[in-house]
Amino acid sequence: MKIGLDLTNLKGCVGEKDFQALLPRMTKTHEDLHSGSGKGAEFTGWLNLPSQTDKAFLAELRTLGEKVRKTSDCIISIGIGGSYIGIRAALDFLSREQKLPVYYAGHNLSAGYLQDLFAKLKNKRVAVLVISKSGTTTEPALAFRLVKQFMESKYSAAQLKQRIICITDEKKGALRAIANEQGYRTYPIADNIGGRFSVLAPVGLVPLAIAGIDVSSLVKGAQDAERELAQPGFATNLAWQYAASRYLLYQQKKSIEIMSFFYEEMDFIAEWWKQLFGESEGKEGQGIFPASANFTADLHSMGQLIQEGERNLFETFVVVKDTGHKLLVPKDKVNQDNFNCVAGKNLDWVNEQAYKATAMAHFEGGVPNMTITLPKFDAYTLGQLFYFYQKAVALTGYLMGVNPFNQPGVEAYKSKMFALLGRK
Amino acid sequence: MKIGLDLTNLKGCVGEKDFQALLPRMTKTHEDLHSGSGKGAEFTGWLNLPSQTDKAFLAELRTLGEKVRKTSDCIISIGIGGSYIGIRAALDFLSREQKLPVYYAGHNLSAGYLQDLFAKLKNKRVAVLVISKSGTTTEPALAFRLVKQFMESKYSAAQLKQRIICITDEKKGALRAIANEQGYRTYPIADNIGGRFSVLAPVGLVPLAIAGIDVSSLVKGAQDAERELAQPGFATNLAWQYAASRYLLYQQKKSIEIMSFFYEEMDFIAEWWKQLFGESEGKEGQGIFPASANFTADLHSMGQLIQEGERNLFETFVVVKDTGHKLLVPKDKVNQDNFNCVAGKNLDWVNEQAYKATAMAHFEGGVPNMTITLPKFDAYTLGQLFYFYQKAVALTGYLMGVNPFNQPGVEAYKSKMFALLGRK
Repeated sequence: MKIGLDLTNLKGCVGEKDFQALLPRMTKTHEDLHSGSGKGAEFTGWLNLPSQTDKAFLAELRTLGEKVRKTSDCIISIGIGGSYIGIRAALDFLSREQKLPVYYAGHNLSAGYLQDLFAKLKNKRVAVLVISKSGTTTEPALAFRLVKQFMESKYSAAQLKQRIICITDEKKGALRAIANEQGYRTYPIADNIGGRFSVLAPVGLVPLAIAGIDVSSLVKGAQDAERELAQPGFATNLAWQYAASRYLLYQQKKSIEIMSFFYEEMDFIAEWWKQLFGESEGKEGQGIFPASANFTADLHSMGQLIQEGERNLFETFVVVKDTGHKLLVPKDKVNQDNFNCVAGKNLDWVNEQAYKATAMAHFEGGVPNMTITLPKFDAYTLGQLFYFYQKAVALTGYLMGVNPFNQPGVEAYKSKMFALLGRK
Repeated sequence: MKIGLDLTNLKGCVGEKDFQALLPRMTKTHEDLHSGSGKGAEFTGWLNLPSQTDKAFLAELRTLGEKVRKTSDCIISIGIGGSYIGIRAALDFLSREQKLPVYYAGHNLSAGYLQDLFAKLKNKRVAVLVISKSGTTTEPALAFRLVKQFMESKYSAAQLKQRIICITDEKKGALRAIANEQGYRTYPIADNIGGRFSVLAPVGLVPLAIAGIDVSSLVKGAQDAERELAQPGFATNLAWQYAASRYLLYQQKKSIEIMSFFYEEMDFIAEWWKQLFGESEGKEGQGIFPASANFTADLHSMGQLIQEGERNLFETFVVVKDTGHKLLVPKDKVNQDNFNCVAGKNLDWVNEQAYKATAMAHFEGGVPNMTITLPKFDAYTLGQLFYFYQKAVALTGYLMGVNPFNQPGVEAYKSKMFALLGRK
């Protein structure tokens, strides 16, 4: 693994002895997951997905991307939840690699948002991606109606056929029916991979390839993680370490985990992580509440509470070692602010010191914390990170005794909303 | 008050009887705050600030704004915490009123972020606002060094004097010294108003006026709220209702409050609220953890956990009655998605149904919730909202027995960081 995990600041809460005590259960958990004998095994298609992704498919995506970018100035990606957050997380993280602007739709029900979007893209060459397994989820379904109307004002039916791509169920559902009827190009959403586990499936790979991301490297990172994290044992398996630490902290009434990061490129990595962990664990009256902090900004907002508030928190920092950026702090003749001590230093080096100081201060303040270290903002690293988190949450879910792959509670508001909308 | 508060979905957790039982303490709390006999009374300058803001000052700001907009294409606003979030919250909320783009700096330590910003503004006419009481807070101090270097590459010293405005301490501190030396225009930061309570002070009003926001309406809304919320009593005082409800829920081990909203314009209102409440209450081992959810997107990520996870949550919805936007759902001949039931309806109406369904579903799932209703996305409403929250958090802080106006824990990481930076 190119990514690292530092558990030093769990001292006093989680240690080697605790891991050893958990070893039999952890071993069983790992076996249950890999043998398909655990809860929700019918949704573990993500487990061996990277190694099963073939090169021909990746080559096809590269060609597709080149073709779309040649004829379009941007793409509208319609989707919500697992059909939205992972894509946005990857594009934000890899923003400097991105070659085609991606605009999102179908992740809200805001008239103003779509009006602004249409006004902005009025004179652009637009391609559209619709991502929905059923085609009947309210937000993307209504957005697709409106985006289609917008596209019809710009293009003929024949042109639309070239400009709309659907990612949907292979056989059934409303979007499949629409795609078949209209002759849109499609990519499949498999039955055995849930939305929040799908960023390394076509749901994520197709839009990322179109945006110009090197999806082969992304998959390569995930493959290497898959192989390494298939090996049981606390000594080397980072997913074991992270999963067990979280579980043990939760047993100690640490009911909130804050993912803290220091670069805005990671905003949506945190959102993706929140869905993955919140939706997988948050059931049957339990689950760690996932929150995020964008440092150092949030040190000046949430910092006080983290340092001295209720001690029901633990924290996981995600830091990037080599950001690839350099901006040196200028020297000031008068030095009123007294910061000539860092003149000539890279600003990102100062940021790194802020991380070190914060991890130490929060630990001393009673917030146990871990640090995930990423080498770079690149696709290979991201592939490892995505897979690592997926593997870890499956393990914690099993340790907690829940099915980490379902989401029965999401239906509650939907059925009430359908009643209010008069939809049968 | 033009804003409303609906407590229906607190049923079973907080009711009229609980309010009556709390009445003596609440009355005392209110009196302590208004008489200046409570904790941290030296920082309650915000309490009567709106009524003390005079028209001449507002007129001056209007003129300043017109002048800056005439000579600049954009402004860089340098600040962090209370010198950043409130401004951004207001501008996002009022984005359709905004006349001048505002870019932020000094809220992070990211080299890539500033490099991108400078590249973007290279050929623009730029004005700069530096907001810092001391001038020695690391993030804005270093950002100001770098922004100054960028500005010096574009402008002469004489031009800079016209383009840089400082908001800082009236007498002391590094930024005051710099401003005096260079002859920059300044606006004051008073000693008796903490950063998170300063959005209605010059810290907020100056940048908002420059951006073209109608700050007179903002202040008018706050004035009306100030007058109304000065009257004690549960029947009519919404700040009492909100403060007491939160306090009573926290007594029942509801340790996380989620602010849930349905329009992206409110993203930073939530961030501002998180700082205000987290920093005011989060001390001495207590405090409600403030989190936010951006619906309906987050119904497809955090929705499962909210519906069925650990029952340590309560939720406050903030909804906007009249968004001012209209986009009708088109009818579809084939109706594969079965949404012709809402054809011809405004998308924002569908959003409203989503809110109603969610509030009901979460209540039934064991998440007590309240709803703050805002009439519109306008400055008057926002002024009321800002003041309402400030008043409420002061009351809850006192009920919890803490000083809601200090932030001693923020120093912990700073002192460690200064050591790592070699700063004395």
